Amino acid sequence: MSIVVVGSIALDDVVTQNGSIKNAPGGSSLFFSAAASLFAPVYLVGVVGDDFPREEIEFLERRQVNLDGLSIIRGGKTFRWAGEYEIDMNKRRTTNLELNVFLQFDPVLPDNARRAPYVFLGNIGPQLQMKVLDQVENPKLVALDTMECYINDNLQALKEVLQRIDLLFINDSEAQLLAGTPNLMNAARKLLGMGPRYVVIKKGEHGSMLFGDNLFFTVPAYPVENVIDPTGAGDSYAGGAMGYIAMADLTTPSVLKKAIVYGGLIASFSVQDFSLNALKNTTNTDIEQRMTEFRSLVSF
Amino acid sequence: MSIVVVGSIALDDVVTQNGSIKNAPGGSSLFFSAAASLFAPVYLVGVVGDDFPREEIEFLERRQVNLDGLSIIRGGKTFRWAGEYEIDMNKRRTTNLELNVFLQFDPVLPDNARRAPYVFLGNIGPQLQMKVLDQVENPKLVALDTMECYINDNLQALKEVLQRIDLLFINDSEAQLLAGTPNLMNAARKLLGMGPRYVVIKKGEHGSMLFGDNLFFTVPAYPVENVIDPTGAGDSYAGGAMGYIAMADLTTPSVLKKAIVYGGLIASFSVQDFSLNALKNTTNTDIEQRMTEFRSLVSF
Repeated sequence: MSIVVVGSIALDDVVTQNGSIKNAPGGSSLFFSAAASLFAPVYLVGVVGDDFPREEIEFLERRQVNLDGLSIIRGGKTFRWAGEYEIDMNKRRTTNLELNVFLQFDPVLPDNARRAPYVFLGNIGPQLQMKVLDQVENPKLVALDTMECYINDNLQALKEVLQRIDLLFINDSEAQLLAGTPNLMNAARKLLGMGPRYVVIKKGEHGSMLFGDNLFFTVPAYPVENVIDPTGAGDSYAGGAMGYIAMADLTTPSVLKKAIVYGGLIASFSVQDFSLNALKNTTNTDIEQRMTEFRSLVSF
Repeated sequence: MSIVVVGSIALDDVVTQNGSIKNAPGGSSLFFSAAASLFAPVYLVGVVGDDFPREEIEFLERRQVNLDGLSIIRGGKTFRWAGEYEIDMNKRRTTNLELNVFLQFDPVLPDNARRAPYVFLGNIGPQLQMKVLDQVENPKLVALDTMECYINDNLQALKEVLQRIDLLFINDSEAQLLAGTPNLMNAARKLLGMGPRYVVIKKGEHGSMLFGDNLFFTVPAYPVENVIDPTGAGDSYAGGAMGYIAMADLTTPSVLKKAIVYGGLIASFSVQDFSLNALKNTTNTDIEQRMTEFRSLVSF
């Protein structure tokens, strides 16, 4: 079954201890699409300028990502983000941010995208996420990711949209901030009380946890020795997880657990190269091999 | 089979957001003994003053912990530590430290303890750990724990003792410090290069990882919602792991993996109350129940 994703599409300049890249495709919905399309058909809704590289569009088309909802603004400049990672890659600082065409982004879903049974609201403001929700038709599962700036600056709108979703993907530090408690178990319970049926807390290199009514699952991360670029890891994670759910077309506990394991594995591929490079080259065989390896790493 | 443990024995004053306790038994070898004795016979070698509570001695005796190597210094005062935890329990500060009788501690192992096949060198200075190693007779497995102050202030001696051990238990932040790299996979490889055959990196609430030649295993922590007092969690972990290894009397990959799972579970009991209180009340039935529960939390 198909997934509609709405979020940012960016051109990134990234500096890490392992090198740097400029004008590289990024943004939450692009990482999500590159990941989810490994499992299921994706409708991508977003906006770019006409500086957005043609070959990235072609990559998405090869992955059968439907681009009917992608606005390409003539003469416009794509959203730009630049950031630098410290040696400890959990720490990064934004060195430049230009919203450009994203400033006027008003998501309009094509008819086919409105009927997608799975919906992912990527890292955009909660008001925009709400506008997307107003357009979808009876989805089976709506998932949402958010980020620190919306928790700090847009809490009321975020809380409203949380009432209308099924699955929240959130970082550990964001979960602590939003729930107001350092203990992740307590935080998850509070977040479940805010609306979603399921909460997934992403802990980066420490793995992730899935919470729901009578449902709890914890899984370590697949260990990556040589992290090249962590940008987009969280979106790749969500893409892998949602892609697996849409492929299974089920939200049973067993499927949700496997989904977040796949999410972690897809993120582990994503960070092994800059931008979308690793996700572009990942095959289903690679994924299944890593799954087999991962099962042996965690079995006792 | 039996384990000899040498380390600190303390009386702790602990303040957390959940309350406080004074004059509570603590120290690396006491937490270790309370944990390991759930699985295997323990020889405890250490020193206390005659202010050390009689009932704690009796508890250890009930657990069949052999105290031939425990010196009780008449008129002496037991090692004292006081600390305060922040709301984020990963952060604590030491508010008082009195070495007292520990200042003159010169570990002498009774004959029976010298022949114990499993050895745990708790958190004491590497010179003292070396003195213990000089006394043991052909052990099957020697494990060591260390802490930040020895990495910073006593690195040469620590590196010497690392050459002579089999299994290093170490925190994530200590592993990064000792190896000089933030990536735990890289850090583990460097630590293996320093001597030990196996390295266990403890990540607190994020679980732990086991590294060896052709051996890698990662496991999340059993999630504890209401952490009362994290003091001694690492020593309880090591005690559970070493206790399981000594009980199995094997160091196969399968046993080592299960050992660190048990270590994590024992630590999860330990933090649920102040001081040794939770470990005192934990039964083998409790442990097996938690193991069953944990297996279901991590299976997919």
